[in-house]
Amino acid sequence: MPEFSFKINATEGKARTGAIQTAHGEIRTPAFMPVGTAATVKAMLPESVKATGADIILGNTYHLMLRPTAERIAKLGGLHKFMNWHGPILTDSGGFQVMSLAQIRKIKEEGVQFQSHIDGSKHMLSPERSMEIQHLLGSDITMIFDECTPYPATHKQAEDSMGLSLRWAERSKNAFIKREGYGLFGIVQGSVYEDLREQSADGLIKIGFDGYAIGGLAVGEGQEVMFNVLDYTTPMLPQDRPRYLMGVGKPSDIVGAVMRGVDMFDCVLPTRSGRNGQAFTRNGAINITNSKYTDDATPLDAECKCPACTNYSKAYLQHLVKSKEILGAMLMTWHNLHYYQDLMAGIREAITAGKFEEFVEEFNRGLH
Amino acid sequence: MPEFSFKINATEGKARTGAIQTAHGEIRTPAFMPVGTAATVKAMLPESVKATGADIILGNTYHLMLRPTAERIAKLGGLHKFMNWHGPILTDSGGFQVMSLAQIRKIKEEGVQFQSHIDGSKHMLSPERSMEIQHLLGSDITMIFDECTPYPATHKQAEDSMGLSLRWAERSKNAFIKREGYGLFGIVQGSVYEDLREQSADGLIKIGFDGYAIGGLAVGEGQEVMFNVLDYTTPMLPQDRPRYLMGVGKPSDIVGAVMRGVDMFDCVLPTRSGRNGQAFTRNGAINITNSKYTDDATPLDAECKCPACTNYSKAYLQHLVKSKEILGAMLMTWHNLHYYQDLMAGIREAITAGKFEEFVEEFNRGLH
Repeated sequence: MPEFSFKINATEGKARTGAIQTAHGEIRTPAFMPVGTAATVKAMLPESVKATGADIILGNTYHLMLRPTAERIAKLGGLHKFMNWHGPILTDSGGFQVMSLAQIRKIKEEGVQFQSHIDGSKHMLSPERSMEIQHLLGSDITMIFDECTPYPATHKQAEDSMGLSLRWAERSKNAFIKREGYGLFGIVQGSVYEDLREQSADGLIKIGFDGYAIGGLAVGEGQEVMFNVLDYTTPMLPQDRPRYLMGVGKPSDIVGAVMRGVDMFDCVLPTRSGRNGQAFTRNGAINITNSKYTDDATPLDAECKCPACTNYSKAYLQHLVKSKEILGAMLMTWHNLHYYQDLMAGIREAITAGKFEEFVEEFNRGLH
Repeated sequence: MPEFSFKINATEGKARTGAIQTAHGEIRTPAFMPVGTAATVKAMLPESVKATGADIILGNTYHLMLRPTAERIAKLGGLHKFMNWHGPILTDSGGFQVMSLAQIRKIKEEGVQFQSHIDGSKHMLSPERSMEIQHLLGSDITMIFDECTPYPATHKQAEDSMGLSLRWAERSKNAFIKREGYGLFGIVQGSVYEDLREQSADGLIKIGFDGYAIGGLAVGEGQEVMFNVLDYTTPMLPQDRPRYLMGVGKPSDIVGAVMRGVDMFDCVLPTRSGRNGQAFTRNGAINITNSKYTDDATPLDAECKCPACTNYSKAYLQHLVKSKEILGAMLMTWHNLHYYQDLMAGIREAITAGKFEEFVEEFNRGLH
């Protein structure tokens, strides 16, 4: 079993490319992690996810603890075996989704009491319980249990929230069962306040983690504010540990964040928007249901090697999406994940070749 | 381009095995045709449909004429290219679905006026228009436009309906544009009345078709009645033409119909019931959401080579179906189509080896 480790192979400005070693293999960075909420990347076979170029996927603790439960998954051999994904898996802590999905939440120092959005049953998430669940799932990368500070927040609100998260970070570290090849990531909070981000980062570094996530962004603050927070936050983090910007984002968010020193991303955008008929292309995002594609015999993207682009016309994809056919969700999702992984591969190659600045310029021109 | 033809390689009792040659390749018989209603076999990539062992799929004229329209599909290169299925395609005539799905139907000697169930737009289907649509789609096997006699029907009702269908059969034959490798099938009607089935068969044979379907069954009459109709109807049909039992059926329906001399089948059962959580196995059909499978680490069918059985447990499939995950529909559909094609392959092998009687006995024991 390899040590959980991170090696940087090349840098350009703040941008880095390298690889994380985990119990289930290597993650090439910068990496985009497709979201596999309920033990499935929606509308995709795991081998198809792999074929798009993804090294790692993300699972959601909140969803899995409720259904089918972490204990059941553990009994069935762990999340990798359960869902037939044999590469690395990162799980979130459940904190974010307890806030956004669960009913009747009660946040205390101990943790969060909530009712399931599925059947109203009562549950508790705490740093200790979140670590236990992620251990049962067998996550290669466990996230500490924190509170994702709502946006906007006053300095006082953000400070209190960040303080709670820091105390929970320490409890998470203590509860985490260290195994060879498995890592634990801290999460920097502090909203849009530089002093709070610094306190958070310092506190986490003192505790010591295998990687550092930047949380509380992509919650409505906009790209400019987000980039501003990244500008001062990534330099606060250790050079030799991976940095993960949670829940991000649009292709231009990712390119801009890599420029600012981020190594890992996850977002439901390619999968969710694919199911809704939005396709990402080198010429920007398009809505396949637009009437101008009704008779369009050309593929979504002539340069793309995904099955949707190799074998089907825009007219056919529009027909499927308008008819609410499952194959529409399958092909559109596949294309979008392929697009995202192509983007990440292009980013990695460009940094390796010392041509990332050029890449960014070309990318920005392509977006119009 | 091969002549449209049918060759019988072996028989046992009334059962036959052979092959139909078409413009897009060979159909091994007895054959099961997965239903690809709206230019997609729901939740399946065409290469996956092929991988289950299917030689031919079925498309629905009614659905395709409304959306995306036959003219559009023709302009985009035909149905094969549109949906990326390069094997044979059979299309129905639209008659059955006009009756079951459309609004405000008006049946006249000329044809059927109806309103689309999608947007209420007005349309007309007649023998001539149905032939034109199926020609535009590029179907390897075109079905005549007929009226599927409702069940139950009095002798008088069934006679009138069968008479209309026979007049429409003649008009269909006249309107059909014959091309090398493409065939036109007649449809025997007459409900459960032997004398009417005979009149219908005789009338159709006089007109002359490349194959003969048996219509108006699998509409609620039950297996015993259906088998009884087959017992006297298949001997009325030419030995040297394929026989197609429309809309059938359960595995035991298929085995019993092959025993009675049927060569081709289509049914939404494996696809639709798969999406609803029903799986066909050698030990009968099971409902995957049954609580006894919640912790079941074994596959649906240990002997089955489909991806659902090779890579996933019943517990995982139950989780997907209960969570309404698209991957649940994908895997359950794949398994069921694989099961159906395995069944057809087993039937063909058994007839070839002169062991079909043994096969039927084993099949019946397996069902409990």
